[in-house]
Amino acid sequence: MDEVPPDAAAADALVLFPSTNLRYLTGYTEEPGERHFLLFVTADADPVFLVPELSGEQVRAESVVDDVRTWADDEDPVAAVESVLAELGLAGDDRDDRDADDAPPHVLVDDAMHARFTQDLRRALPSATWGLASEVLADLRVVKDDAEIAALRRAGEAADAVVRELRRDGDDLVGTTEAELATHIEERLVANGGTGVSFETIVGSGPNGAMPHHTHGDRTVEAGDPVVLDFGTRVDGYPSDQTRTLVFGDDSPPEGFREVHRVVREAQDAAVEAVEPGVTTGAVDAAAREVIEEAGYGEAFIHRTGHGVGLDVHEEPYVVADGERELEPGMVFSVEPGIYLSGEFGVRIEDLVVVTDDGCVRLNRTDRDWRTD
Amino acid sequence: MDEVPPDAAAADALVLFPSTNLRYLTGYTEEPGERHFLLFVTADADPVFLVPELSGEQVRAESVVDDVRTWADDEDPVAAVESVLAELGLAGDDRDDRDADDAPPHVLVDDAMHARFTQDLRRALPSATWGLASEVLADLRVVKDDAEIAALRRAGEAADAVVRELRRDGDDLVGTTEAELATHIEERLVANGGTGVSFETIVGSGPNGAMPHHTHGDRTVEAGDPVVLDFGTRVDGYPSDQTRTLVFGDDSPPEGFREVHRVVREAQDAAVEAVEPGVTTGAVDAAAREVIEEAGYGEAFIHRTGHGVGLDVHEEPYVVADGERELEPGMVFSVEPGIYLSGEFGVRIEDLVVVTDDGCVRLNRTDRDWRTD
Repeated sequence: MDEVPPDAAAADALVLFPSTNLRYLTGYTEEPGERHFLLFVTADADPVFLVPELSGEQVRAESVVDDVRTWADDEDPVAAVESVLAELGLAGDDRDDRDADDAPPHVLVDDAMHARFTQDLRRALPSATWGLASEVLADLRVVKDDAEIAALRRAGEAADAVVRELRRDGDDLVGTTEAELATHIEERLVANGGTGVSFETIVGSGPNGAMPHHTHGDRTVEAGDPVVLDFGTRVDGYPSDQTRTLVFGDDSPPEGFREVHRVVREAQDAAVEAVEPGVTTGAVDAAAREVIEEAGYGEAFIHRTGHGVGLDVHEEPYVVADGERELEPGMVFSVEPGIYLSGEFGVRIEDLVVVTDDGCVRLNRTDRDWRTD
Repeated sequence: MDEVPPDAAAADALVLFPSTNLRYLTGYTEEPGERHFLLFVTADADPVFLVPELSGEQVRAESVVDDVRTWADDEDPVAAVESVLAELGLAGDDRDDRDADDAPPHVLVDDAMHARFTQDLRRALPSATWGLASEVLADLRVVKDDAEIAALRRAGEAADAVVRELRRDGDDLVGTTEAELATHIEERLVANGGTGVSFETIVGSGPNGAMPHHTHGDRTVEAGDPVVLDFGTRVDGYPSDQTRTLVFGDDSPPEGFREVHRVVREAQDAAVEAVEPGVTTGAVDAAAREVIEEAGYGEAFIHRTGHGVGLDVHEEPYVVADGERELEPGMVFSVEPGIYLSGEFGVRIEDLVVVTDDGCVRLNRTDRDWRTD
C-alpha cells in the first residue's frame, strides 16, 4: 500500500470477507459463500486469516498472509471468530490489558460483507462502533498503478476485438436471439484473451434497449433494430466495460434513431473532452447532460454519466450530477451517456477512460458509429 | 408460499436485497450492486420495492410487486429508504400511530445483504432489533416443489452429458491445461442446454486435486493424473453440482489411487443409501465418514458430506457431522465425500439427491468409476 489514509488511525480493526477489497490487500480471490472466511487486520498485531479447513492449504499457498487459521465443518465458526477477536484485544478479557481507556473498539467491515457475518461480529462485539472498509480502502483503490492500467487496457482490447467482429459480421447476426448473441459474444471474449465476463452481457434489441439494465432474452434481432451491446471480460482480474449501439442488416433504423444516436455520441465526446485532473465528476456529468438536455432528451437520460472501474466494475469515482470529487491522474471510469425511449429503443455509448496528467485516454478504441459492415 | 412459519409473526418487517431470496419471493433476478435496491415486506401493508430509476421499467415489467418506487442517480437513496420506512410505520412520526405499545421494530434483513446497506438501515432504525431473512424463508425454500425439481433435474442432465463427453474424449484431453479444460467444459455445458456456470469450474489435476476448492490453473493434465472435475450449470435459475474424479490417457494412476477411489465411492454409496425421510443430516454424514475412517483416511476427509442445493448452490440442509435436521421429501442436497492427500492427489465423488417418500433418487446418473474410454 502506498499510503495510510488519515482516517485509518481512528479504526481499531478492519475485517474483510471474500471481496475485491480482500483481493486488493492479500492477492487472494474467493467467492462469497456461506462459510466464515474472514481477514482481521489491526494496527498492533499481524493480520489473522480465519478460513474453512478445506481452503486452508490453498490460502496458505496463494495469499500473502502468514497467520492462517482454519475451522472445520464440525466446529463452530462463531466460536472461532470470538477467539480471534479476544486474542486481538477487541473482545473479552484481553481487552482491558491493551486499552487502558477501555473505549469500545471501532471496527470497519467489508462493504460487501453479508449480513449473516456482520450480525455475528456485532453479537461478539456488542459495544463496538462500526464503519465500512471503503473509508480507508477506497482512496487507495481509486488511483490505479501501471500494472492495473495495463490489465484494464488488455481487457478493453479483448472487448474491442469482439466489437470489431460484430460490426464485420453485421448482416449474419440478423435472426439470432438476444440470448444467442450474448453466448456468441461471451465465447468471442474468451477467444480474444479475456477470462469470463465482467458482468452479465447486455443485448438490448429494439424496445428492450430502452431498459438500461435489461440483460438478454428470447427476442430475435431484426434487420434495422438498434441493439445496445454492453459487455466486458476480465484480464488478470481487471474488467472491461464498453457499450456500442449497432444496427445490423440492410433495413433502416427506426425514425428518430439517427438523431438520438448523434446526440448521445456528441454527449459522450463532450464528457470525455471535459476529463482532466482537478475537474470534478459533476462537471464531467454536466458536460454530457447539457448536450442531451439541449437536444430535448434530458428526461430520457435516466442514469449517471459513469462509474469508476477497477477490481469492481462499479466503484469510485462515480460520475454523477453535482459530484464534487476532483479527478486525479490514474483514475479510471466509464463515460456512458444514454437516451432511453420507452417502447421504442435505447442508445448508449460507453468507453473507459484513464485520467492522465493533462487530460485522459480512452481504453476503448472502436468506432462509435451505429453502422455495421 | 405454502405456509407461514411460526417465527414470521415475530418480525415487523423483512427487507430483501438482490439475492436468491428476492428471486424466490418476487420472481425478479438482479445482481448485487452498489445502488440501493430493496424490497420492504410488512404484515400490514403491500410490499414496497425501492429500486434505481434505471431499473424501474424492467422491475415493473418482470416482478410480481405492484408498488415499485424509484430513486434517481442525482437523488439521495438513504433519504428514499427513510421515507419508505416512515410510511410503513417502522420509523419516524408514523410509528406511534400504528404501534401503541411503542416497542422497537424487529427487522429481518436478507442474509446476503451487503454491509453498506445494513449500516444505512441500522442508522435509519436505531432502536430496532435485527434478524436474518432465512429465519422465515429457509424452511420454505428447503423443500422443493415439482417445478423446482424438474429444473434441478434438467441442470443435472446437462452436466451429466458433459461428463459422458469427457469420458469418451479421455485420451484427447491429455496435454490440455486445467484452464483450457475448464473453458471446454463451460462451452459444453451451454451446448447441452445449460445457462452459464453455477459456480467456478473446478479442474484439479494431480496434486491440485488435494485442494478441495482449487478452481483451475495453468497445470497441464498428464496421462495417469487423477483429475477432480466439479462443475455445474443452471436451468431456469436452478443449478447442478456434481463431481467425478477421472484419469485420462493410457498411463496408470499413482500408487494408492485405486484404493482411495474405491473407498470414496463406497462412502458415497453408503451415504446415498442412508437417505430417507426422518433420518438426520448427521446420520447421512456419519454413513460416509465411517467408511472413510474405517479405511484409515478419516483425517483426509476435511469437509462436510454435503449441502442443500436450490436457487443457491449452497443452502439448507447442510449434511454435517452431528447435524440434527431431519430429512423431508422434496429436500435436495449433494452427497460428496472426498479424500485429499496433500502433494499427491484428491478424490471426490458427488451426486445431487432428492429425498422421496421412502428413500431418494440421484439427479446425476453417470458412471462413478475413474476409468475413461
